[in-house]
Amino acid sequence: MENIAFTPGRDGVAIIDQTLLPGEERTVTLTNREDMYGAIYSLMVRGAPAIGIFAAYCLSALANQAEADEFEGLYARLRADAGYLNASRPTAVNLSWALNRMLGIAERNSRRSISEIRDLLYRESLAIRDEDISMCRAISEHGLSLLRDGDAILTHCNAGPLATSKYGTALGPILLGAERGMKFKVYADETRPLLQGARLTCYELEKAGVDAVLICDNMAGMVMKNGWIRACLVGCDRVALNGDTANKIGTSALAVNARYYGVPFYVLGPTSTIDPGCRSGGDIPIELRDPDEIKTLFFAKTIAPDGVKCYNPAFDVTDHSLITAIVTQKGICYPPYEENLPALMENQGA
Amino acid sequence: MENIAFTPGRDGVAIIDQTLLPGEERTVTLTNREDMYGAIYSLMVRGAPAIGIFAAYCLSALANQAEADEFEGLYARLRADAGYLNASRPTAVNLSWALNRMLGIAERNSRRSISEIRDLLYRESLAIRDEDISMCRAISEHGLSLLRDGDAILTHCNAGPLATSKYGTALGPILLGAERGMKFKVYADETRPLLQGARLTCYELEKAGVDAVLICDNMAGMVMKNGWIRACLVGCDRVALNGDTANKIGTSALAVNARYYGVPFYVLGPTSTIDPGCRSGGDIPIELRDPDEIKTLFFAKTIAPDGVKCYNPAFDVTDHSLITAIVTQKGICYPPYEENLPALMENQGA
Repeated sequence: MENIAFTPGRDGVAIIDQTLLPGEERTVTLTNREDMYGAIYSLMVRGAPAIGIFAAYCLSALANQAEADEFEGLYARLRADAGYLNASRPTAVNLSWALNRMLGIAERNSRRSISEIRDLLYRESLAIRDEDISMCRAISEHGLSLLRDGDAILTHCNAGPLATSKYGTALGPILLGAERGMKFKVYADETRPLLQGARLTCYELEKAGVDAVLICDNMAGMVMKNGWIRACLVGCDRVALNGDTANKIGTSALAVNARYYGVPFYVLGPTSTIDPGCRSGGDIPIELRDPDEIKTLFFAKTIAPDGVKCYNPAFDVTDHSLITAIVTQKGICYPPYEENLPALMENQGA
Repeated sequence: MENIAFTPGRDGVAIIDQTLLPGEERTVTLTNREDMYGAIYSLMVRGAPAIGIFAAYCLSALANQAEADEFEGLYARLRADAGYLNASRPTAVNLSWALNRMLGIAERNSRRSISEIRDLLYRESLAIRDEDISMCRAISEHGLSLLRDGDAILTHCNAGPLATSKYGTALGPILLGAERGMKFKVYADETRPLLQGARLTCYELEKAGVDAVLICDNMAGMVMKNGWIRACLVGCDRVALNGDTANKIGTSALAVNARYYGVPFYVLGPTSTIDPGCRSGGDIPIELRDPDEIKTLFFAKTIAPDGVKCYNPAFDVTDHSLITAIVTQKGICYPPYEENLPALMENQGA
């Protein structure tokens, strides 16, 4: 079952509605640009590479629907549709990359017939998908070379098949290794607010028979502190030329912890995610979304697959070296605590 | 309205059921030790100082119920009840501290009449609460000396009045400052899995008229990276003699980020939270809780007060200095990225 497919008449695009997973595997068909935009914005389809493939398919389907008998009319329509779809989400570069590639195909073939251009657009959209499959496979092979059988891996959000075409990026090495009989243990951050890690990563790992443990995002630091993690693997939505990487909220906080605990932190993605227009992370626009995603439970019909294991510590221990001061009723205690805490406790004042 | 109070006959303890907040303010009365244990375990009452006060009240109520006409009978019963209640949660030291203090009162007055001992236990439990109020006030004053009017503060979980007696520990300086007309802006981590930050901290800040912004736990790093936070204030459940501090899961990951971004990280709590029996954090037992707290939405009838503001970025940017390697379909790219990423993109292979 493909995540993204043309309708038989090629005038629409069918996707698995990822907002309903893992509780329900429902296919939804989009035939007009408003619904296509909505499918991206509402995260029915998500993951930077998957958005690129979906947008290319949509532009091909819209070209097939367009009433035009000469290039100018068709191209004006395609540009308007591409501009419209491109506004659905700002951060992932793959969306504009795929749309521009499709427009380029039309532009470079302006002397051909409408029906030839439609066919070229269709083939280009399939090429974008096929290239994504080979890229994901290559990424997975390279990533697998960094791992050893039996490793425990930490991942954030979802960068598996649902977010791409096949294998995925961050999950790719794990799924490819699993196909070859390697055993990994994956700690999956649930990834608030929309729980892509709990809902989608755990669902994909369970399907692939990979040992998965679901944790809340704030538990990742403790899992690394416990010494359980050999590497962090995450995907990316846009990479600046200096390597600064935009990815799901929480990725940077995870990277700070990985550095602190000496855990290698790998970003996986196709080179199309590298944006030559961004010199550093400051150039990357960050999408701000609806507060109700935090305040209400958007997609929480089913938070996680029934059978998933969880690690649920109620507390963790913060190393004294990270604490600026301990404030008690007897006063403010600064390091060295080993000397100053006992003195404070003996202090009869207050 | 007090969070924890005796019933008129002093044979039971009434609490606000914190699992129903902020949607519903329901008072529940506990009259037997099984329900008292359940109230602690299920987090109807929570927060290290509040658990201590509650446990002391419970032991007093149970002493008033006990059928005993001599000290040995009463004391045996109290020891059994204290041991039973003490097993409800392992991490916060205040629980055993309060229970032992109550047992000590009984033991030191073994020659007095049962009715005198009952009265002493009652008065001791009120003393524990009154001391907590003065401690919280003193902690708040000391904490306030570290802040300036207009500061933005980041906090995790709930260490306000609900978790203590009055003011709270981590929220204490903010609430005390607000009483004096100071303006703080508080970023509150929602604190998965049980959302004490969203449900309780935002509720308390809203009641006090403090400007609050709710974020998911994984957004705290970005908020600090944005340069928005002047200080982190957190409570504590147990502090080892070297300063290692057990607090709500996620605190240590927050501290690692605070250190990385140069934000002062303050732990606030009474000296009773310092455990002389623990030389370092490795000696502190960490409670592992029910996986269903992560997989299903335990207390999510209402996640947060209706009116709370949220900051909901979908992505963040991870600095290149934190990334070990970027894995693409063309190979694995190591730093310096500014040189190696363009070279990788030009590479025609793969």
